[in-house]
Order: sequence, then C-alpha cells, then structure tokens
Amino acid sequence: SDQTSGQDSRPTRVMVIGGDGYCGWATSLHLSNKNYEVAIVDNLVRRHFDHQLGLDSLTPISSIHDRIRRWRSITEKDINLYIGDVCDFEFLAEAFTSFKPDAVVHFGEQRSAPYSMIDRSRAVYTQQNNVLGTLNVLFAIKEFSEDCHLVKLGTMGEYGTPNIDIEEGYITITHNGRTDTLPYPKQASSFYHLSKVHDSNNIAFTCKAWGIRATDLNQGVVYGVRTAETEMHEELYNRFDYDGVFGTALNRFCVQAAVGHPLTVYGKGGQTRGYLDIRDTVQCVELAIANPANRGEFRVFNQFTEQFSVNQLASLVTKAGEKLGIEVQTISVPNPRVEAEEHYYNAKHTKLIELGLQPHLLSDSLLDSLLNVAVQFKDRVDTKQIMPSVSWRKIGVKPKTVSA
Amino acid sequence: SDQTSGQDSRPTRVMVIGGDGYCGWATSLHLSNKNYEVAIVDNLVRRHFDHQLGLDSLTPISSIHDRIRRWRSITEKDINLYIGDVCDFEFLAEAFTSFKPDAVVHFGEQRSAPYSMIDRSRAVYTQQNNVLGTLNVLFAIKEFSEDCHLVKLGTMGEYGTPNIDIEEGYITITHNGRTDTLPYPKQASSFYHLSKVHDSNNIAFTCKAWGIRATDLNQGVVYGVRTAETEMHEELYNRFDYDGVFGTALNRFCVQAAVGHPLTVYGKGGQTRGYLDIRDTVQCVELAIANPANRGEFRVFNQFTEQFSVNQLASLVTKAGEKLGIEVQTISVPNPRVEAEEHYYNAKHTKLIELGLQPHLLSDSLLDSLLNVAVQFKDRVDTKQIMPSVSWRKIGVKPKTVSA
Ligand SMILES: NC(=O)c1ccc[n+]([C@@H]2O[C@H](COP(=O)([O-])OP(=O)(O)OC[C@H]3O[C@@H](n4cnc5c(N)ncnc54)[C@H](O)[C@@H]3O)[C@@H](O)[C@H]2O)c1
Ligand SMILES: NC(=O)c1ccc[n+]([C@@H]2O[C@H](COP(=O)([O-])OP(=O)(O)OC[C@H]3O[C@@H](n4cnc5c(N)ncnc54)[C@H](O)[C@@H]3O)[C@@H](O)[C@H]2O)c1
Repeated sequence: SDQTSGQDSRPTRVMVIGGDGYCGWATSLHLSNKNYEVAIVDNLVRRHFDHQLGLDSLTPISSIHDRIRRWRSITEKDINLYIGDVCDFEFLAEAFTSFKPDAVVHFGEQRSAPYSMIDRSRAVYTQQNNVLGTLNVLFAIKEFSEDCHLVKLGTMGEYGTPNIDIEEGYITITHNGRTDTLPYPKQASSFYHLSKVHDSNNIAFTCKAWGIRATDLNQGVVYGVRTAETEMHEELYNRFDYDGVFGTALNRFCVQAAVGHPLTVYGKGGQTRGYLDIRDTVQCVELAIANPANRGEFRVFNQFTEQFSVNQLASLVTKAGEKLGIEVQTISVPNPRVEAEEHYYNAKHTKLIELGLQPHLLSDSLLDSLLNVAVQFKDRVDTKQIMPSVSWRKIGVKPKTVSA
Repeated sequence: SDQTSGQDSRPTRVMVIGGDGYCGWATSLHLSNKNYEVAIVDNLVRRHFDHQLGLDSLTPISSIHDRIRRWRSITEKDINLYIGDVCDFEFLAEAFTSFKPDAVVHFGEQRSAPYSMIDRSRAVYTQQNNVLGTLNVLFAIKEFSEDCHLVKLGTMGEYGTPNIDIEEGYITITHNGRTDTLPYPKQASSFYHLSKVHDSNNIAFTCKAWGIRATDLNQGVVYGVRTAETEMHEELYNRFDYDGVFGTALNRFCVQAAVGHPLTVYGKGGQTRGYLDIRDTVQCVELAIANPANRGEFRVFNQFTEQFSVNQLASLVTKAGEKLGIEVQTISVPNPRVEAEEHYYNAKHTKLIELGLQPHLLSDSLLDSLLNVAVQFKDRVDTKQIMPSVSWRKIGVKPKTVSA
C-alpha cells in the first residue's frame, strides 16, 4: 500500500556519493558517457587514508579536479563536483538543493574491513562515518527529493557464510506452522561489514515509514581496473589497491604474481565469495538507476557474477602467470581474520541478470584487466604493503601509528 | 570452540551503566542490597533531556548524589559513582581500570523511540550515542577486563511483529534442503529500536572474534515504580515517565486515569507487546549476572512476563479504576507511529524462567505499583505532556524547538 509505480520519466540527474573512489569514479564516467547529468560528492577522505597509512594506488591517479577537467576536454561533458562530507548535513543539504538528483548512488563510505579493525578509533570512525552519513542521505532525500531513488552499496559480506543458500535480501520462513517472508539473517564479521548491515536496516525502515525508494546492492568483491571510459586517457585511470588494508584478494594476487612474491592465501583458502569485474559494477548501477525501486520499496540485489574460493583464485592466477612466462608460488599465511576457512556457500544472484546484466567473466579479464596492468606498473609496487598488517583478534584501544 | 566454561568464582563487582535511569536505579539498589559491589556510570543526560523538553517524572526524584548518600545512611552500603559519557573512551577506560568490574550491565542509552523520531539531529544522536557507546564498552571489556560479562539491555522491539513465533535470539531455518541456526531476523521500527539491532549485531561479532561473554536482554515494556529498595525512603524514589516522549503505554494510561483524561489508544489498539514489572527487571538482571554467559557466547533472553494488546491494557486500567471509584474513558487517537495495528504476536520467553525468574503479574501490581502512585502524585501531572507530540512520518531535518 506504500508502493506506487516507478517514475514515469527516465531519471537523468544522478548524484554519485564517493565518486572519487574506485567504484565511484568508474561509475561516474560511465553514467556521464551515457548522458546522465552527474554530480560527484566526495570528501576525498580515501586519499587521506592512503597518505596516513603510507599506501598508494598501483596505477598513478590524478586529482579529482584534473580528472574532471580531462573528461570535459575529451568528451565535452561536465561532471559537477561537491567536495564535502555527507556526515555534515549542512553541506549535504546544499548539494541536494542545488543539484536536485533523481537518483543518488551512495558509494561514500569507509569500505575496508581491515581498516575498521586497525584500532578502536578506526572501528568507531567506520561505523560513525558510514551509519550517520547514510542517515543524513536518507533525511536529505525525505526533505529535498522525496521521489529520488537511493542506490546504496552494501556488501555480500553482510550475509556471512550461513550453511543454507543465500537469497537476495529476504527469505521465506515456515516455523511452527506459520509462514512469513523476512529480512535474510545477517552475520557480518568486521566493524566495516557490520556498518553495512546497520545501513541496510536503517534504510529498510525509512522505506516503510517514509516511502523512500531504495535499492541495496550487496556487492561482491570487485576486481580489475579497466573500464571503457577510464581507458580513454591516463588522467582518467582508476585506482588499483593491492595493499593489506585496501587491496582485495584478486588484485593483490595479481600484484604478487607480477613482482615475484608468493600469493598469500589466508589460512586454508576455502573462503568462498562472490566476485565481479569493475565493468559489471558500472553496468549494475546503471541498471538499478534505469529501473528504479517503487516508492516504499526496499529492494535488495546480490551484485556479483561468479563465486570463487581463495584457492581457486590462486590457481587461476598461477595459470594466467604461466601464459605470461611468470612462475607463481603460493603460500599459506596465518589468517588475520576470524572467519570460516571451509564452508558451504551458494548465493543467489539472478535479479540483476533479469534486468539485463551481461557479465564479464574472470577467465576473459584476468590477463587484460589485471595481470597485465600489474606487470605494467610493477615498479610502483611497495612490497612492504603486501602482507596482512591488521589482526581481527589483536585490535586494541591504543591508536596504531604508522612510520615510514 | 570459542567457549570455555563460566567463571568459577561468583561475580561480585557490577558496573551499572545508566544507573541513574529508571531501570538502572532500581537495579543498582537491588544489587547493592544483595551485597554486590556496585558502581554507577551515568552522564545524567536523561535528566538533561527532561529539562530541554520541559518534562518531569511524575514522582519527585532526588539527585544521584542525594540518592547515593541516602542509601548509604540507611543501609551502610556504598555505591561508587562515575559521572561521564561512555562515548568518551578516556573516561570509560578510567572507570574500568579503577572499578575492575566482573559484570557490566549496560542500560546507558537514549531509550525512547519517540525521542529518536523528533528531528534529524535527535535521530542521529540516538544512533551515535547508543551504537558508539556500546562499541566503547566492548573495547573496554576486551582491553581491561577480558573475562567480564556484558549484560546488555536490548528491546523486544528489535523483532518487530513477524507473522511467525518470535524465538529468543536465534531461529533454526531449513531452506532448500539444508538447515542452519541463524540470528532471528529483525524488523525494528524507529531509529531507537534500530540502534538496539545495531548493538546486538556488533556484540555478537565481538563474542565470536574476541571471546566476549555477553547476554542480550530483549526487554519488553517495563511498568511500575515500586521496588523493595526504592520504597525505603522518598529520596530513593524511582522515576515514573508518563509523557508522550518517554512514557510507556501502561504508565501513561494510569496517569490518564488518575487525572480524568481519556486513555489514548493509538489507532486500532491491536498492537501487542511483551510487558514486565520493574521488580522483574531487577530480578532478571540479577539472574543474568549470577549465571554468566560463557566466553565467546552471545546469549539472548526475551525479558518479559506477559503479552498484552493496547486495548487489553486499556480495559485492565478501566477495571482497576472502577475499584478506586474512578470512571475511565478511552479514545482512539491517530497513531503517530508507523506500525501494524492488528497482527500475530507470540514471543517465547522461557530462558529467564528456567534460570529462576518468578514473575510479578500485572493483575497483582496494577493498583499498588501503578494506579495508586498515579493518584498519589496526580497534582504533579502536566496534562499538556499526555498526548503524542512526535510523528514517525513528519520528522524533518530542522531542529524542533520546545517552548513553555
Ligand atoms: N571495492 C569493492 O570490492 C567493494 C565490494 C563491495 C562493496 N563495496 C562498496 O562500494 C562502495 C565503494 O567502494 P570503493 O571500493 O569504491 O571504495 P573507495 O574507498 O575507493 O571509495 C569510497 C569513496 O567515498 C568517499 N567517502 C568516504 N566517506 C565519505 C563521506 N563521509 N563523505 C563523502 N565522501 C566519503 C571516499 O573519499 C572515497 O572516494 C563502498 O560503499 C564499498 O563498501 C566495494
Ligand atoms: N523502560 C523500558 O520500558 C525499557 C524497555 C525495554 C528496554 N529498555 C532498555 O533499558 C535501558 C534502560 O532504560 P530506562 O527506561 O531505564 O532509560 P532511562 O532513560 O531512564 O535511563 C538511561 C540512563 O542512561 C544514561 N545514559 C544515556 N546515554 C549515556 C551515555 N552515553 N553515557 C552514560 N550514561 C548514559 C541516562 O542518563 C539515563 O540515566 C535502555 O537501554 C532501554 O533501551 C527499557
């Protein structure tokens, strides 16, 4: 009864919160290229984390200002830029009232599980930044753009690794002779992943109470760096994280292979997750925007294309290395996380396919979008950053400082 | 495998966070009376809310300093007092290292659903205060008192009103031929209730990752004001909230009956919830402390004794009024909340009974602990505060100001 049909007119104005980040930058260019009017909202805190922790993207990346200038000079398309923090409601209100979005894609969170497990203050920062920032976005939509569609990035990690199939957001349960369809139980395993569960619960409530229209994209692990737009010029290059804090497994393995470092499998390597190519991230987000949720609907999509265990990834990278004449070793390192290392995993992911997603498969991308890039930039690799540096069990209350 | 057996020695030192509040004050006195060494930690923000909103307890309450002095003069028992905010980690660390608790009972949160729905800044405050405060408590336990048992107050409102039986924290689900026991799905319906869901998820993770021992008490709506200890002297009186922001349904109905105001049923009145007497709150908390969770165990108890619909409460108060010669009317007012007004509700609550809880039933308490108190203090009632003043749907981003 809260639901009315989707918007009649095609959404055209898209605010991309976190548009200077890895997924956000690729998405902003993709949407701009498809003639959406794009505004990036970002406080650039991700670049600040890199400075503070002494990390850097494998690929050299330009400032957001140079990126946007270069995009304009190549395509004659403008991208609006609002630099500020979504936790600052005055700033966010100003961005909303001046840009008037039809859709908001919210990537703007602290997104690293290890970062959230460095020390107490980073754990607290992660939940504060993510949960309160998202609350502000919800209030801004309610107040200034009631009909605006929120496309929110969640993570497959919200589900954990239950011993039953993972559904897309909801599960129908029959219990003591009665049946109901309820939110799928969540078992997140870092303060970062937990922040996403909190967000999902908050958003679901506002859909019901205020009629917000929202799509929660429970994204798998994204890999790769190349998208059609970022390839147009080196000033448009996307970031490529390989370090122990921000690097995701597959990116890190490719860098390790490129520099002759053994692939570091955490523990037994049976940890299985959903993965997707960055080219599919931008496709999925566009599909969600083009097919908005109804008023009052809290729609959940599992956004990934293939499942792999860590051991499977290691063996794929080893084989790809052979084609390039690189000999790749694999070692097991003590698992810094608290997680099951052998478990059942079967997660559904049909809803985005039904909307038209055409997946890029890892077997086709591994060399081009990953290993070759790693080889190309291998002189920029800081091998000190490759090993895990954060322990789930040893996190303490004292601020962890970093030296050169 | 994370679990080891409970503590051998009886826990004796109990830190009560939020010990100046309604449940916390009654619990602190009860535990002190039972010869536990008690420390109250409270930033007194609840009294500050009352000042800011122009509200007051029906019963006159003394300052925390006078309360503790009076308790000492009557019983020769000391209660330690730490005034400060659990969101301030430096303060909390100091309280932990100086008091060295065996158990922490955490009542110290913003606990009103309507308060969390007043305006944006109170919504954000509620989640910030509750979620980040609890994170700090978890870090303090990990760092300073690894073996300490966390007894955390949650709410039955975390579950919402599913169309199946509500279990105590977990539910066994068979799905596509496989079975797992998973956290019970939550459907909270205010920013306050959501903050409790976030807390539960955060605590469950730290039990698994750090071996924290925790009991989550999903408490029903508490009623009544009298406990054995608070009756000893008027300076020990507990607070009694009846206003539209902090008053819970039953307390408010009794005050309405006492002043000749019709009982205000929100909407259809079929809303059914679990209720318990404040004397059972203190009993339940003591039972939880005396029977600690194991290391790594996240134990969930549903803490209430009887279920009532709002209409049932209204009719019980009407009948009790008759006995006192008070004629009681009931009216329906537009529901300020977004909630089902007719629904299935069957929540399990056997675990505390198994530990020895001996419930006080509403039929026995209604006159003594409620209606008579309301009549005794009826001259203190501010009838302006009786009607709901906060709307779930109309909450906005502008700070809501209060005038006299
Ligand atoms: N990269 C992945 O594999 C992956 C997987 C699943 C989900 N996600 C989710 O997708 C989103 C984007 O991830 P990413 O890899 O691009 O991360 P990223 O760190 O590269 O980008 C996030 C961007 O958000 C900005 N930001 C953070 N907090 C902000 C705030 N308070 N105000 C304004 N801007 C803020 C940062 O400056 C950064 O530019 C995140 O929400 C992440 O949780 C990513
Ligand atoms: N009263 C009920 O019916 C009921 C029902 C279910 C659950 N609960 C839960 O029980 C707990 C106690 O409820 P109550 O009715 O006694 O509430 P209350 O408001 O009377 O007491 C809460 C106390 O915590 C203190 N506090 C709040 N934030 C703090 C912080 N950051 N640092 C230090 N102290 C802080 C307040 O000053 C106050 O004295 C709450 O967590 C509440 O959610 C209460």
